[in-house]
Amino acid sequence: MKSIPIILLGCGGVGRQLLHHIISCRSLHSKQGIIIRLVGVSDSSSLLVSDDIMLSGMRNEFLAEICHVKSAGSPLKSLLNHGHCQLYTGQGALENIVSIASSLGRSTGLAVVDCSASAETEQVSSLGCCVVLANKKPLTCAIEDFEKLVSHFRRIRFESTVGAGLPVIASVTRVISSGDPISRIVGSLSGTLGYVMSELEEGKAFSEIVRAAKSLGYTEPDPRDDLSGMDVARKGLILSRLLGWRINLSDIKIESLYPSEFGPDSMSTEDFLSKGLWQLDEKLKERVATASSKGNVLRYVCVIEDSRCNVGLQELPKDSALGRLRGSDNVVEIYSRCYKNSPLVIQGAGAGNDTTAAGVLADIIDLQDIFA
Amino acid sequence: MKSIPIILLGCGGVGRQLLHHIISCRSLHSKQGIIIRLVGVSDSSSLLVSDDIMLSGMRNEFLAEICHVKSAGSPLKSLLNHGHCQLYTGQGALENIVSIASSLGRSTGLAVVDCSASAETEQVSSLGCCVVLANKKPLTCAIEDFEKLVSHFRRIRFESTVGAGLPVIASVTRVISSGDPISRIVGSLSGTLGYVMSELEEGKAFSEIVRAAKSLGYTEPDPRDDLSGMDVARKGLILSRLLGWRINLSDIKIESLYPSEFGPDSMSTEDFLSKGLWQLDEKLKERVATASSKGNVLRYVCVIEDSRCNVGLQELPKDSALGRLRGSDNVVEIYSRCYKNSPLVIQGAGAGNDTTAAGVLADIIDLQDIFA
Ligand SMILES: NC(=O)c1ccc[n+]([C@@H]2O[C@H](COP(=O)([O-])OP(=O)(O)OC[C@H]3O[C@@H](n4cnc5c(N)ncnc54)[C@H](OP(=O)(O)O)[C@@H]3O)[C@@H](O)[C@H]2O)c1
Ligand SMILES: NC(=O)c1ccc[n+]([C@@H]2O[C@H](COP(=O)([O-])OP(=O)(O)OC[C@H]3O[C@@H](n4cnc5c(N)ncnc54)[C@H](OP(=O)(O)O)[C@@H]3O)[C@@H](O)[C@H]2O)c1
Repeated sequence: MKSIPIILLGCGGVGRQLLHHIISCRSLHSKQGIIIRLVGVSDSSSLLVSDDIMLSGMRNEFLAEICHVKSAGSPLKSLLNHGHCQLYTGQGALENIVSIASSLGRSTGLAVVDCSASAETEQVSSLGCCVVLANKKPLTCAIEDFEKLVSHFRRIRFESTVGAGLPVIASVTRVISSGDPISRIVGSLSGTLGYVMSELEEGKAFSEIVRAAKSLGYTEPDPRDDLSGMDVARKGLILSRLLGWRINLSDIKIESLYPSEFGPDSMSTEDFLSKGLWQLDEKLKERVATASSKGNVLRYVCVIEDSRCNVGLQELPKDSALGRLRGSDNVVEIYSRCYKNSPLVIQGAGAGNDTTAAGVLADIIDLQDIFA
Repeated sequence: MKSIPIILLGCGGVGRQLLHHIISCRSLHSKQGIIIRLVGVSDSSSLLVSDDIMLSGMRNEFLAEICHVKSAGSPLKSLLNHGHCQLYTGQGALENIVSIASSLGRSTGLAVVDCSASAETEQVSSLGCCVVLANKKPLTCAIEDFEKLVSHFRRIRFESTVGAGLPVIASVTRVISSGDPISRIVGSLSGTLGYVMSELEEGKAFSEIVRAAKSLGYTEPDPRDDLSGMDVARKGLILSRLLGWRINLSDIKIESLYPSEFGPDSMSTEDFLSKGLWQLDEKLKERVATASSKGNVLRYVCVIEDSRCNVGLQELPKDSALGRLRGSDNVVEIYSRCYKNSPLVIQGAGAGNDTTAAGVLADIIDLQDIFA
């Protein structure tokens, strides 16, 4: 039996789903000779560490209890008396992660699994443990910090940061390592913006679509977090850096779907939805019509080509993989020597806790050869 | 520097391309801390073994010479006096592979890379070395032999056996290991048959299309090797077994595009092309028309579902990934809990020496963590 000890940072939607997947995959993984041991788990205020980090880690029942308590909105610390574990807060939490990483990291190995929205994993990456990320932040910081984080490239996985569980990072990595130079990546990397663009194509008004998407739970609480394109830009940055480009977020040209005078600094979410949004309808309608008059469709895409990454609206052929896209699926087209005339296309659901956590779990399992 | 010693079985189209890729990726791989050392290479009649298998392996110039000699149609043995190597033939060749595998396999590790069309890798797989396959044969033998071959699942890779370099096996493996149960795989897994079906859709006659495809080099020398569906069935078998099904080739229902009375036992390739083929035109034209009358298109697919694998013609929705397929691209749709309503789709060139060899090379690199 190969044992993979993990510390989970963050038990929000993705982190909790990961705990569920770990429990339900116990027998599948043990058939493959693998056991995942949860030795620590953190939320924004504290870190719980199992008393027997060298042994079995936290029991299934305790994992389930963590999920239960966290989905009820309570903090992790309310679990202190339930399991055999220690609680650390503030700087003590980070210090303890560091201390576990350095003790386990050198003996049996450790994977720090970041399903938080913080930037702490940066600090643990230098300790020689493995890192699995759903969190884009540590990968989209300054290029120097990124390079430090990925310097032991075989010890890090971050599939779920782009297209959730879709095998985008794994496929790009394969293509690169086979010496097939990638000349261009074009992707629709936001489920929300994919949905918005295909609804626009149906002739609906932008304001109507965004409001409907918000009420369906397809958008962030403030839809401008999606409409700004910043999340797509972070994904584009991760892909660009994977190609070896030494660029930063500030090097990416990002087209926001709202003007800066409608931004969070100038108006509240409510004002944006009620007063700002409809003023954008006409311009987008025109752009869709212009595209359509040329036989094209309008898509919100990330284009990575010629050492540049651009994020924004593009007119694309109706019959390309991107042009045919409907609903909230993500799609990525990869062009290289082998995939020149007709790209390598990967398509499917690119968001959601289930598929994101599944991607994280596949990453953990993919690290198995490094563990004793 | 991590060193990966390999023995290459087969230096036909794929094997030679792999040697070229290895040479041109030397600096890329050395930046990643990897060096691939060719310690042996075989064709159908002999095995050449480098004199210094423990050291650097064969030099780049010798690899280039192998490619040169083999593409001129000469046997490997004509190279005996050119490099620092030993030649073995017949049973001696196999015995030497076994002896290298058991000496290197236990010390620095060894990967046997099978780009042949033989079944010999089966015999070396039990020696504790890694195995990389472009050759489908060892995976499509009796289920017991298959299970022996994949029993150390982390030591074998076979991406290029399905969809050439397309990341199909890697993606299916990821989905499975994340505990996301696959309920259905549908694929167009033959570039030749994909081409034939999309040309049929354009209204051309079957006999005309097949003859054109043959003269363009899209088919095997005897096009019936493609039209029989047997190659697609082997790919379907590999995917089915990857899902854990204990089935054999004989369990697969295969629809051939020609009747048995037109088979190789009854008529020559020339007779088939000149006398047999056109008799099939009418029936296929009707099937295309029937599909079209329901708004569907006809595709030659492999369907893996409910513990059954079927290979043959299917009517499919025009706007599905498979229905939209044009030309010789392969496409695979994977349905699971995470990819339920909208499948995970992988599409792109699924044949050709370049992409097949690239897939083999990515597989070799993917084994790196096992090597010292
Ligand atoms: N959901 C998706 O579809 C998806 C897809 C791809 C990537 N991601 C990424 O995955 C990550 C998690 O997403 P989510 O939807 O699960 O978010 P979420 O529900 O907001 O949960 C975030 C979790 O991180 C914790 N956290 C915040 N700061 C922390 C810190 N400094 N140390 C440790 N934990 C901290 C939070 O603690 P509290 O419970 O105390 O607030 C919470 O448990 C995010 O980075 C997101 O961008 C999500
Ligand atoms: N080409 C593609 O697009 C593609 C795609 C996916 C998979 N594949 C698979 O990849 C493999 C190689 O394809 P290919 O196109 O390169 O075939 P190929 O050009 O016919 O070459 C086959 C090579 O295997 C050698 N060989 C035959 N029997 C052998 C044995 N017992 N031991 C060692 N070598 C032996 C042959 O030796 P001689 O030189 O002495 O004849 C030849 O060098 C096949 O299994 C094929 O199905 C090919």
